[in-house]
Amino acid sequence: MKVLITTVPFGDKNSLPLELLQQCDVDFLINPLGKKLTEDELSEMITDFDVLIAGTEQITEKVMSNAPKLKMISRVGIGLDSVDLHAAKQREIKVSYTPDAPAPAVAELTIGLMISLLRSVQVSNSQLHSGEWHRYFGKRIAECTIGVIGLGRIGTRVINRLAAFGTPKLLVNDLVANKELDRKFKVNWVDKKTIYKESDIITLHLPYTKSTKNMIGHEELLMMKSDASIINTSRGGIINEDALYDVMRDGHLNGAAIDVFINEPYSGNLAQIERCILTAHMGSMSIDCRTRMEIEATEEVVRFIKGEDLMSEVPEAEFLSQLQGL
Amino acid sequence: MKVLITTVPFGDKNSLPLELLQQCDVDFLINPLGKKLTEDELSEMITDFDVLIAGTEQITEKVMSNAPKLKMISRVGIGLDSVDLHAAKQREIKVSYTPDAPAPAVAELTIGLMISLLRSVQVSNSQLHSGEWHRYFGKRIAECTIGVIGLGRIGTRVINRLAAFGTPKLLVNDLVANKELDRKFKVNWVDKKTIYKESDIITLHLPYTKSTKNMIGHEELLMMKSDASIINTSRGGIINEDALYDVMRDGHLNGAAIDVFINEPYSGNLAQIERCILTAHMGSMSIDCRTRMEIEATEEVVRFIKGEDLMSEVPEAEFLSQLQGL
Repeated sequence: MKVLITTVPFGDKNSLPLELLQQCDVDFLINPLGKKLTEDELSEMITDFDVLIAGTEQITEKVMSNAPKLKMISRVGIGLDSVDLHAAKQREIKVSYTPDAPAPAVAELTIGLMISLLRSVQVSNSQLHSGEWHRYFGKRIAECTIGVIGLGRIGTRVINRLAAFGTPKLLVNDLVANKELDRKFKVNWVDKKTIYKESDIITLHLPYTKSTKNMIGHEELLMMKSDASIINTSRGGIINEDALYDVMRDGHLNGAAIDVFINEPYSGNLAQIERCILTAHMGSMSIDCRTRMEIEATEEVVRFIKGEDLMSEVPEAEFLSQLQGL
Repeated sequence: MKVLITTVPFGDKNSLPLELLQQCDVDFLINPLGKKLTEDELSEMITDFDVLIAGTEQITEKVMSNAPKLKMISRVGIGLDSVDLHAAKQREIKVSYTPDAPAPAVAELTIGLMISLLRSVQVSNSQLHSGEWHRYFGKRIAECTIGVIGLGRIGTRVINRLAAFGTPKLLVNDLVANKELDRKFKVNWVDKKTIYKESDIITLHLPYTKSTKNMIGHEELLMMKSDASIINTSRGGIINEDALYDVMRDGHLNGAAIDVFINEPYSGNLAQIERCILTAHMGSMSIDCRTRMEIEATEEVVRFIKGEDLMSEVPEAEFLSQLQGL
């Protein structure tokens, strides 16, 4: 058995995942390019491997057709937009993921970004580093209307943590209602348009699908209040990057915090917007969560190699929703 | 009666403080220089005024000796380090302050800065704005040992909000124990040296006094773990700015977040340190808290003008602790 690990860094802060593979006596290769692979790079690299421990790179029909031995994909993370699940199923390639591990780290970073945006920390910091002093007024979380789109593992955790800061008005939206959330918090289920129009700050916790791609473009951004802010720690491309640049360049929005991009590493024109916080897809990059993700993904590979039952195979619902483009 | 308002901005987001003064039919002047005044500037400006609505500028013996009519100082904020309380008492100048209003805003900003530091948001943001992409590992609050020095109105609120993020190990220090805190949270009362040595992140919530001035210098900073971080949203000069610059330039510490400075506007060499977050004394600058501070300080002035009892005169303990240099 040969295992290709494309996600980097891997086994960096905690070597247990590597040790687990060594104990199985398998050959493994960690992505020698040290960056997120393109479809072509992965197609070339994968030809001889049985198992892929994957990041967010595109694992397409084309990649799989170049990987005749591939029997299993173990995603380090929750998003499945990068994997053509239908193609995998047709080739009887098993797909597992780690849906729970990243959530606490992403939710915590989201709260930090929210406070930074509400208090213009990034703007004051940038100004003071170039010798300018301006005291910005901000808002406390409790004073705000906060829109949360996507109430899965991460969105619900964000709401949970917000409760420590008082009682903001919470506007929420998802495909299905979350009744547990209703029991614990006073949330208002509204349509997305209402969230765009009424929120002081909006945060997205959605998968990347045909229906969330470019979900927020010019029109939606311009519905937002001119002093509102928006956070995306979920997947690049849900907010159209060009539209966000255009409206912010023209003075719309108080701020934005973008951790995820269509093309990573990112090098687009949002870098010109001082009040846009940019981070390098670091939502899940707390040592504990990243380690848990790597260990869970590797344990799943070890189970596969030993012929044991898998514990976190991607459920049928994910296959269906990808087919339907939900 | 003539009222001088030195703190700026004032009445900017909410004009009620100005209306309260207009209803009293008093003359008032808002600091025409639009910045924190030096001792000399204030001495020159104050000569003809009866009441001072003050920010953090130095109100010294010299200033008071140039203000023969001065009968009351109303501080917009909590810190009294800027006011020579002894000199005020000798001249029978009443001093009031607004000790409660800033706390929620300062505590919330502190949590935001803490998450930014733990996740290297400021470094990744600065790098991405100049076209560099590096994914930094970070820590979640729950994984950390957090040192809180000063358990007054703000420090206790910080601990309260931290609880939403799990159960970090909390090391705390203050002159007197806070028994309510012990009932609500599992905190460890330790000496400051233990906090310096063992914390992953340290936050200061102290007044500026003879004994806290330069409390953290080279020696204390070098006791800290090389990947630890430190936050000061209390008063400038409690961490020696030159020492902080020296150790960080040499690669010590993961990060720092400094909101308060010896001289404001700040223009020192910490601006050269990318991993040092700098903000322009914005701890209390949420619209609601700032408004509450301005209204409370003005209402106190109105009471004074009308000859009513004051409601938030500085207590005797503050006079004593300033005399004793605590």
